[in-house]
Amino acid sequence: MEKITKGHFTLPAQANLEEEVKMLAKRWGVDTIRDSDGTTLSQDILSLGLTVYSTLCLIRSDQQWIKDHMDMCQQKYLISFPITAESSELKIKILKGYSHEQFKIDIKHSPKKYWEVNDRTSGKTVSARDWEFNEKSCELVIKKANKWHVYTVSFLVHQIWESTSMYNYITNKWTGEHQAGIDPRQPEAYKHIIEYYKKWLMEHLDSDYVRFTSIAYQFPLIKNEERKNVFLDWSGFHDCTSAFALDEFEKEYGYRLLPEHLVDAGYMNATYTVPKKEYLDWIDFTMKFIRGFSKELVDITHKNGKKAFLFFCDHWIGTEPYREGFEDMKFDGIVGPCLSAIELRRIAEVPGDSIKEVRLYPYFFEVNLQDEPVFKDNGDPVAECKKWWKKIRRGLLRRCVDRIGFGGYLELAVKYPKFIDYVEKLADEFREVLHNTKKSIPYSSFKGKLAILNAWGRSRTWIQQENWPYGCVAEILAGLPVELEFINFDDIRKGISMDIKVILNWGNAYTSWSGGDHWTDTKVVENIREFVANGGGFIGINEPTAFEYQGRFFQLFDVLGVQKETGLTLAWSKNIKPQINNKHFILEDIKNDFSFKFITPSIYFSKQSAELLSGTFDNVLLSANSFGKGRSVYFAGYNFDYDNIRMMLRAVYWAAGQESSMKKWFSSNEKTDCAYYPETKRIAVMNNDYDAEDTVIYNESGKQTKIELDSLEIKWFDLDEINNLCK
Amino acid sequence: MEKITKGHFTLPAQANLEEEVKMLAKRWGVDTIRDSDGTTLSQDILSLGLTVYSTLCLIRSDQQWIKDHMDMCQQKYLISFPITAESSELKIKILKGYSHEQFKIDIKHSPKKYWEVNDRTSGKTVSARDWEFNEKSCELVIKKANKWHVYTVSFLVHQIWESTSMYNYITNKWTGEHQAGIDPRQPEAYKHIIEYYKKWLMEHLDSDYVRFTSIAYQFPLIKNEERKNVFLDWSGFHDCTSAFALDEFEKEYGYRLLPEHLVDAGYMNATYTVPKKEYLDWIDFTMKFIRGFSKELVDITHKNGKKAFLFFCDHWIGTEPYREGFEDMKFDGIVGPCLSAIELRRIAEVPGDSIKEVRLYPYFFEVNLQDEPVFKDNGDPVAECKKWWKKIRRGLLRRCVDRIGFGGYLELAVKYPKFIDYVEKLADEFREVLHNTKKSIPYSSFKGKLAILNAWGRSRTWIQQENWPYGCVAEILAGLPVELEFINFDDIRKGISMDIKVILNWGNAYTSWSGGDHWTDTKVVENIREFVANGGGFIGINEPTAFEYQGRFFQLFDVLGVQKETGLTLAWSKNIKPQINNKHFILEDIKNDFSFKFITPSIYFSKQSAELLSGTFDNVLLSANSFGKGRSVYFAGYNFDYDNIRMMLRAVYWAAGQESSMKKWFSSNEKTDCAYYPETKRIAVMNNDYDAEDTVIYNESGKQTKIELDSLEIKWFDLDEINNLCK
Repeated sequence: MEKITKGHFTLPAQANLEEEVKMLAKRWGVDTIRDSDGTTLSQDILSLGLTVYSTLCLIRSDQQWIKDHMDMCQQKYLISFPITAESSELKIKILKGYSHEQFKIDIKHSPKKYWEVNDRTSGKTVSARDWEFNEKSCELVIKKANKWHVYTVSFLVHQIWESTSMYNYITNKWTGEHQAGIDPRQPEAYKHIIEYYKKWLMEHLDSDYVRFTSIAYQFPLIKNEERKNVFLDWSGFHDCTSAFALDEFEKEYGYRLLPEHLVDAGYMNATYTVPKKEYLDWIDFTMKFIRGFSKELVDITHKNGKKAFLFFCDHWIGTEPYREGFEDMKFDGIVGPCLSAIELRRIAEVPGDSIKEVRLYPYFFEVNLQDEPVFKDNGDPVAECKKWWKKIRRGLLRRCVDRIGFGGYLELAVKYPKFIDYVEKLADEFREVLHNTKKSIPYSSFKGKLAILNAWGRSRTWIQQENWPYGCVAEILAGLPVELEFINFDDIRKGISMDIKVILNWGNAYTSWSGGDHWTDTKVVENIREFVANGGGFIGINEPTAFEYQGRFFQLFDVLGVQKETGLTLAWSKNIKPQINNKHFILEDIKNDFSFKFITPSIYFSKQSAELLSGTFDNVLLSANSFGKGRSVYFAGYNFDYDNIRMMLRAVYWAAGQESSMKKWFSSNEKTDCAYYPETKRIAVMNNDYDAEDTVIYNESGKQTKIELDSLEIKWFDLDEINNLCK
Repeated sequence: MEKITKGHFTLPAQANLEEEVKMLAKRWGVDTIRDSDGTTLSQDILSLGLTVYSTLCLIRSDQQWIKDHMDMCQQKYLISFPITAESSELKIKILKGYSHEQFKIDIKHSPKKYWEVNDRTSGKTVSARDWEFNEKSCELVIKKANKWHVYTVSFLVHQIWESTSMYNYITNKWTGEHQAGIDPRQPEAYKHIIEYYKKWLMEHLDSDYVRFTSIAYQFPLIKNEERKNVFLDWSGFHDCTSAFALDEFEKEYGYRLLPEHLVDAGYMNATYTVPKKEYLDWIDFTMKFIRGFSKELVDITHKNGKKAFLFFCDHWIGTEPYREGFEDMKFDGIVGPCLSAIELRRIAEVPGDSIKEVRLYPYFFEVNLQDEPVFKDNGDPVAECKKWWKKIRRGLLRRCVDRIGFGGYLELAVKYPKFIDYVEKLADEFREVLHNTKKSIPYSSFKGKLAILNAWGRSRTWIQQENWPYGCVAEILAGLPVELEFINFDDIRKGISMDIKVILNWGNAYTSWSGGDHWTDTKVVENIREFVANGGGFIGINEPTAFEYQGRFFQLFDVLGVQKETGLTLAWSKNIKPQINNKHFILEDIKNDFSFKFITPSIYFSKQSAELLSGTFDNVLLSANSFGKGRSVYFAGYNFDYDNIRMMLRAVYWAAGQESSMKKWFSSNEKTDCAYYPETKRIAVMNNDYDAEDTVIYNESGKQTKIELDSLEIKWFDLDEINNLCK
């Protein structure tokens, strides 16, 4: 097995940095160079013999054409910020609170037809006869407003500054013209893009790969007048909206989408909300178009002898990597930004055998995502890089990708020699993982799968990430040696798959993550109860199975063994005080005092069969229960820390009744991980901590050996080697 | 003005304790003696020349008659604890989880007619054809249960052990026969009670007052098999339920109350829940009966030359002191247990000029309310008494009552000489307040009223007391020098009274205290917005104005200036970061670090006009806002402590725009209170703390003088005296 010592690395190159690129080809093993927004690769660089990625954002490539066709630039609905009527005439500056640089009110498409004015106090729509829009003042006037009612206006805008362009521009403090984005759903725009692309291909014979950034529609990234984010939903379908698309939708689906179907009283159908039929139709409608468009672009790319990569970020809306049919577009690779185990797995697990590449942090930008200095002043790009790479590696050990890379502007990075040194080490470490794993899946002593249940299921695999970028429950899960899948309530309704051993439900009540009114569906609770009673496991976190209905809040109070006091049942005593068990299997490795940073208070017991693992009878933090032949675990909250990672692992094994087999290819120290790859017969032992750590490794037959690890070190062993060490 | 040096004190006497009673008549100033449950007063005691109260619980006075008429003992609906069907036949032991000593299933009244079996998973009622009740096994069998659905049975029971009797029996570890309670709604029982009472009067010529304990129906105090509380709702209308009453209700109201109307899916229409029409009808129906019955008892009492007192606890249901017409019953006095300022004011403010008497704590029982030793072992009755008296006095300074007293068994108390000493001091202190105030209302520099808004309003004045007995927001309010009233949403709908200057709304979302769906009523929000815009104040605590509707959770987000993140709007940035003001008027006297024990997290700003007083922009603890000419204050939580008492006072003045007049008859030290009584021209300065405290008193013209106070001391001054001291 020849060692992979170079390659698998994509570098953003820049004109006039030929020497630096050559140096990094050697030190980082760069085999591929790419351009970035606003940069081009010089002929000297293109001649270095490296593979060339060209990033291409077709919807904003031809700014001249867009300027000549501003009626074809992208649109969306905005909802004006709620305003309270203080008299019977209410004037609303509808764009107030939104960026005037980013949006322009669309008055070409009749406001009376496409807009909606809502009385949010009565819940009624205001008749189009009762309001007028003044184009000059950009004010909408409601003539017979109900005094002291709250009103909103849902109105169409043209997006005159494209979101990614705006982000890069602001972050890098650029000046100059703002770029707009074109809507390919307009037939003329579509035709122009295809023609433009064909011409572009002729002009970019040096490019080996085209990396589409991405296809057409950005997730909504809405700014205000101060250029601050107002709204951001990584999987929101808003930038695909236009008067034309709405009319097309009506023809295809037989009903008209009203503004309210999209703005949803201001919740904007954000991924946090339980999706409604109309919005799901809208996703479908957009996906069909985008996939058709993508397929055409990929086909043209292939005809021109190049490969096509998809950027799984920015304008990824409608490509839907986790919905059926994604592979039919025949992308050769998929690239995504990555700062955590969740994000690593989001890329790694995209179906199909396309090349998976992650773009690491920090970007070669002056500042990071939190607008703190990185490649400037007192910035510490090594610490910034290490912080995220350390998280990424937990995921990488479970599912490896093909390539790593960076984005941004090389001129910034080359000024930091310590960063050059660190990435040299990082790149070797990555290639060592790739070499040793051959992208194979590590051994798991857990038989079957852990299913993460929410209203989105598979389509939003590894998307849920509250507390981003620091880590949430999904981040904990993304590093566990347990096979996982995301399922939705339809997957429950049609019968729980035999390979699922534990179901996990985590989230705030009434959100898509917890599930909202799905929990009032008899089929859902019947099937889960049946599953647990027959030996399945159920893990609930925060407000699982929650919906105030028929006398209770946690609908699966019987499975969970706990209930939440919402203030409606204070008259009932909380008499169920089951066994206290602070030596439970789940707690065995816990080092620190128990507390949860993100917590739902007021949990009490609903079943005597339960056990209190931490907290008090009035404020349960962690508990376990049995139901039929099955088991459940309830976490009132979580932290993202070593204790929680270990507790979750133990909870999964315990819930499935598999605790006796947990210690096979297992690392005793909770700050470390261990993974055995049967295909390559190699074993990784990884220290996740900045301090040096010792750990005891258990092999498959439970024999043990002590391993010493330096700060963040990964040690690799052959199967025979470690088995010989084990006693 | 002659000083009141004795009297106004009711003592529970006991046979064979003549000497002790005489001693206490001297030392405590006892002028009235009473019996207690299970004791009688001997002729020797009756001859001491003291006024005699006889406590009389007519519904359980004649146990022999009840035993002969068990079908007339009181009834109620119980709801079986939810049980999950594991197969298509489900057997439910319906009385499981409830006391078999307290309840007996009523099988005389056809279960098929009076009971209801509910599928709590589908939300459907199970047809009476599909279940059978087995009298022998006390099991209800559902023949075609839906597997994995949750079922409950609402069934009628006879209460074979009356609740107060049961409480006294258990607390005092009595043995012997359990007493049952008779239902006076049964005509035969009614007739018997009246006859019994007339006879009793003939046999109790020594009694001067009859203290009814109380009329007929106890608030629900439901026990389980271990004699622990299961359900307790101090103003719940359940013990008035019977097959007969349900039939009568149907005749009178033209519709039938179903079991579900009363058990309410298990919420039991507890006072915490927003009352529904059917339950309000049921309250009305019961009140009419009880008031008629009470009036007859009072009339008979008066005809026999005695006075009638009502015990405002235990069987007070239906007397409704805070609903119109209470005075028509012509009770001569009302007595209530009292351990806090809330409870003091609940008695003191009962409409009418009847005598108001509070029964202090501890009861002369071995243990206290928390089952801790008081009059036994290492019990410390002085500490126990002081702890509550200290709280009561805050209310007493605002509204004085006529009398104090104790309950229980004198034989226990007389063993504790330090307790005798302490109560001697306490009684003098009480009489000093009475003497100096003449029950007049103290001066308030606050012009107008503070209205506490919830779904119950006036009818549940001083009833809300989460965190009982330690103190909640209402306890804070009960000691403030501000005129208060309780209002409901109808009071808002019909137009906010001109004398209201500030409206306060406190509670968990969806409860009666916050208001639930009343907040979706346009008239409610219109009128409150109008009120504030015209200069009114609004104080919101915890989840005020909360109902998830039309895009928002706090419906009055515009008035409050804040909103709560429930998990549905995480995609929206929280950009509103108004002024930080940690020197706001409201905070001026705060001594300790800011934290709230009872808190709603995740509050953020909705209006730039707001100010952050404490907390962070992401987790507001305390904020202020302006709306039109008015102001609002938001508290995310509260503690019961000196800082919170003072902040609330300041918040009320500030919200009303009256902050400049706060320091009139004002005490600077937040651990102290001051009250000026214009009618008597006397001034009290009170230390609420165990430590000695200094304070500066501001007189009406704002001049100041320093006063030194010993632990818990109350100092009294003449108006001229203090004005002379002030500079």
